[in-house]
Amino acid sequence: MPTYQAPVRDVQFLLHDVFDIERYGNLAGFADVTPDLVAAILEEAAKFCQEALHPLNHSGDREGCTFDDGVVTTPAGFREAYATLIEGGWTGLCSDPDYGGQGLPFTLGAVVGEFRSSANMAFAMYPGLSEGAAQALAKHGTPEQKETYLTRLVSGEWTGTMNLTEPHCGTDLGLMRTRAEPNGDGSYAITGTKIFISAGEHDLSENIVHLVLAKIPDGPGGIKGVSLFVVPKFLVNGDGTPGERNALGCGAIENKMGIHANATCVMNYDGATGWLVGEEHKGMRAMFTMMNAARLGVGVQGLSQSELAYQYAVEYARERLQGRALTGPKHPDKPADPIIVHPDIRRVLMEIRAFNEAARALVVWTALREDLAERSPDAAERQSALDHTALLTPVIKGVLTDTGFANAVAAQQVFGGHGYIWDNAIEQVVRDARIAMIYEGANGVQALDLVGRKLPADGGRALRAFFGEVGGFIASVADDEAMQAFAGPLAVAVKDLEAATQWLMENGLAAPDEAAAGSSDYMHLLGLVALAYMWAMMAQKSLQALGDGGTADKGFHEAKCATARFFMERMLPNTTTRLACIRSGAACVMSLDETAF
Amino acid sequence: MPTYQAPVRDVQFLLHDVFDIERYGNLAGFADVTPDLVAAILEEAAKFCQEALHPLNHSGDREGCTFDDGVVTTPAGFREAYATLIEGGWTGLCSDPDYGGQGLPFTLGAVVGEFRSSANMAFAMYPGLSEGAAQALAKHGTPEQKETYLTRLVSGEWTGTMNLTEPHCGTDLGLMRTRAEPNGDGSYAITGTKIFISAGEHDLSENIVHLVLAKIPDGPGGIKGVSLFVVPKFLVNGDGTPGERNALGCGAIENKMGIHANATCVMNYDGATGWLVGEEHKGMRAMFTMMNAARLGVGVQGLSQSELAYQYAVEYARERLQGRALTGPKHPDKPADPIIVHPDIRRVLMEIRAFNEAARALVVWTALREDLAERSPDAAERQSALDHTALLTPVIKGVLTDTGFANAVAAQQVFGGHGYIWDNAIEQVVRDARIAMIYEGANGVQALDLVGRKLPADGGRALRAFFGEVGGFIASVADDEAMQAFAGPLAVAVKDLEAATQWLMENGLAAPDEAAAGSSDYMHLLGLVALAYMWAMMAQKSLQALGDGGTADKGFHEAKCATARFFMERMLPNTTTRLACIRSGAACVMSLDETAF
Repeated sequence: MPTYQAPVRDVQFLLHDVFDIERYGNLAGFADVTPDLVAAILEEAAKFCQEALHPLNHSGDREGCTFDDGVVTTPAGFREAYATLIEGGWTGLCSDPDYGGQGLPFTLGAVVGEFRSSANMAFAMYPGLSEGAAQALAKHGTPEQKETYLTRLVSGEWTGTMNLTEPHCGTDLGLMRTRAEPNGDGSYAITGTKIFISAGEHDLSENIVHLVLAKIPDGPGGIKGVSLFVVPKFLVNGDGTPGERNALGCGAIENKMGIHANATCVMNYDGATGWLVGEEHKGMRAMFTMMNAARLGVGVQGLSQSELAYQYAVEYARERLQGRALTGPKHPDKPADPIIVHPDIRRVLMEIRAFNEAARALVVWTALREDLAERSPDAAERQSALDHTALLTPVIKGVLTDTGFANAVAAQQVFGGHGYIWDNAIEQVVRDARIAMIYEGANGVQALDLVGRKLPADGGRALRAFFGEVGGFIASVADDEAMQAFAGPLAVAVKDLEAATQWLMENGLAAPDEAAAGSSDYMHLLGLVALAYMWAMMAQKSLQALGDGGTADKGFHEAKCATARFFMERMLPNTTTRLACIRSGAACVMSLDETAF
Repeated sequence: MPTYQAPVRDVQFLLHDVFDIERYGNLAGFADVTPDLVAAILEEAAKFCQEALHPLNHSGDREGCTFDDGVVTTPAGFREAYATLIEGGWTGLCSDPDYGGQGLPFTLGAVVGEFRSSANMAFAMYPGLSEGAAQALAKHGTPEQKETYLTRLVSGEWTGTMNLTEPHCGTDLGLMRTRAEPNGDGSYAITGTKIFISAGEHDLSENIVHLVLAKIPDGPGGIKGVSLFVVPKFLVNGDGTPGERNALGCGAIENKMGIHANATCVMNYDGATGWLVGEEHKGMRAMFTMMNAARLGVGVQGLSQSELAYQYAVEYARERLQGRALTGPKHPDKPADPIIVHPDIRRVLMEIRAFNEAARALVVWTALREDLAERSPDAAERQSALDHTALLTPVIKGVLTDTGFANAVAAQQVFGGHGYIWDNAIEQVVRDARIAMIYEGANGVQALDLVGRKLPADGGRALRAFFGEVGGFIASVADDEAMQAFAGPLAVAVKDLEAATQWLMENGLAAPDEAAAGSSDYMHLLGLVALAYMWAMMAQKSLQALGDGGTADKGFHEAKCATARFFMERMLPNTTTRLACIRSGAACVMSLDETAF
């Protein structure tokens, strides 16, 4: 069974060298973030993920969750691993210390989240869902709700869920039928069926805190009449312990392509008692708090599976002996060369690697902005950070999951026939990675969100700031000859993005189909430029390190520069095709009559 | 459960209008191929595939094959379906009438093969493997071998297999260990273990004819010492009936990602009795006879899953109500519009459709050349047809399976969360389609075969002929204004292909890594040009039909032209990126040391 090593060194390079996390010492929770603390957290996280979670990844997939009359049992080892997780304090890493959290930067949570998800994506979803629920309660809950539920979510004693989807409505939540009728005592009776509820029922925690979207009778129609409720599996006693069972239950778990070890539940609410979170009819606002964080988290899942697939493929490509290098035997002592000598294998490994390292940088860059948006004392800085995360969140969700899946498929190809059978574990990575393109808003919805909402918001302020930052970087290295191999292609790609933006402004505002037809291409085009910017920044730091003559990490920095060059020469040129597709407009996309398909 | 409709109309357009199959009436087996006969065969095939095979597709996946002490049982319904298949005479459709076949054009077999594989890919592999074995015996077997084995393969009473792979050798067959020791009576004792043997054991037929590669002791080393043997599961009595059990058996079947209903077997040969097919040590030549046909067949599998995925996605996109069209409600009577109104959904459907129809044309075009290569009385025509199939076979295998899989994934995305669960059947299409990129030579191997062998062969004659034909077509429509929307982009793409070829000639001959690093991009670039040529030819015929004022098929031909335009505007521009990648060369691909991954 292949192994997983958390990319600790790479994360340290990003946190310290590229993004200089030390300069945020004025923010809450950042003061203690010394290199030593970071190293200790990353090493501990890596150890837990490698030794406790990853060994359960393949067995969890094969065993899956089981359902018996409303009771869900997770695969062997999951209960013990979850107990270790909460003992280690990992569930409250970035949460508010007032509710038992450690208050560390969200950025650290994001990188540890990648490790956890690589090691065992299905497992990582249980605490992942809890974090989303905790954030919604932290932002929108009453003090009593926080005391009752948030503290237990932070401690990990209880877990959380998000209940949005119903059989007939997913993206279009305005069609929702689940209703919440006032009981007269401040509580509501929740009735309806929700589907695709990840971690909706399981045996890891003594209580489950469901956050449920429902409509209060006589409220506004459609999406404007949706409210958010907290609906615990067990009603909570006065002393905070779980009491009477609430009128809700898991009706079934789905049989699905992957993430077999995470229970995807049909949840039935039969007049279950719930309490309003936030204001009446403002449930979508609260839900978007969860969804934005969740979307970044799903982007990280895409990266995490790409990283896992890369490591599996590299291990196999080093071990599998087959054929000889075209330029003559590289290992004449062996009956054949390892397949890593072949350029087409090498191309695949380089493509995955060049994506992973830049995607990780993109996550760190954006997670730091999330920290700023939450914790900066400066209103302008908070707003600019919010602009950034609003713009980049759909890109990270869409591009990191699309590309993460494609990379898992490419890594599987390295295994030949051995990649198609269960035993080598890589086919599981493909099946697991697939879901990330779908949930938390399918990637087509992310692209529409980007083009239809995020681009035009505030007169295009967020994108202008993005162009400003990238353009500023390019200008700042104009005299640095060694940087032109990176800044030059980046500048060309920026021009393609500018041209695409211009085209959308001229054509998409009056005719929304024109923007929508190119939305997916635009999302990927913006993603390519953002990844290229990450590579240019990383190359700059590595060139500096190499120039400083430090030999300790010579191999690391040389590999960074080589991978950056690969990205620029071999992956970035795709901006041209994306631009051409956007400019081709809606006519050819929409010309066929609905009935002609 | 979604349904499948065989694309009979589309095939008729290709056979009669685009490729004018009637003009080959001078070839053996073509004389009887009247439009009426074609219609009858296609309708019968469609009926069988839709009604008998497709209903077993999803259930076959869920049940899978079972293994018990050497005995393999196929899923419920498979035995009956196989009996119906052979009753209908489908197994011998294109085989030599001297051995019980109907001798019809291979082209008809290819299009019927697409229907069968769309309807049930795992089932279709059983007769598919037999066809490969039959072809090898037809070409290389002795008259006695043909009488004994070929007649039963043609009738479908027995099925066949190909045994190449061993645990430590797949692509690199020179490492093979299975040995064949002369028994002194003209037979050999075959000993060794073969893996990944599709249809190696099952309950559909009374005997199984294994074609096995093995080494005769004291022969040349490596690939040059490999011979081919026919090794039946049951030795054959004097009267042709199955007799004593041979010393071979299925040791296990693989648990794998997809094609669950096709048994992928570990085959153990323990001194099994076999007979040489063809010459000693010339086994690879015979095996390539099977492989070339099999590679075209695997390309068709890629198309077949793309077509199935398309049909599933269209059905779902028409039924699923969610949101409103950006340009205002299209179905105001319904609670929401069907998602087919959304441009990003439409883009996905158009991309799959534009691929499928051109890929089908590419298969017909090339299958006709296979017929010519076999049956033309003119040596020059045979040679030119052989050149064509040699050049296009790796492209069809690689591009049709890569894109077919990508299309299955894109179609799954249309379903949102509903695409991830078993019940909607689309996730099976993704899992089944995945194998086609891997077996019969992984697609990276196809690309190397194309660039390393097929391009330079005979001084580049095959590619010159390809450029000549496409260029001739473009020139022939130079005065046809309506055709410029298709011929124009085609000409641009041809220039990219010429530039890429030029680059490979200048750089790849001296430094093979330079060619290998761009091989996959080159294969896809050539594929794009070939598909574009197909679209230009189809558009020409549809424009003519529309110009002739025939109204019966107006919708069909208008859709053809609209889809052709979509391909040209939205899919063909990718040639630019492919060319840029090829030109970036091997340096950036190979610069990282093996140990740095």
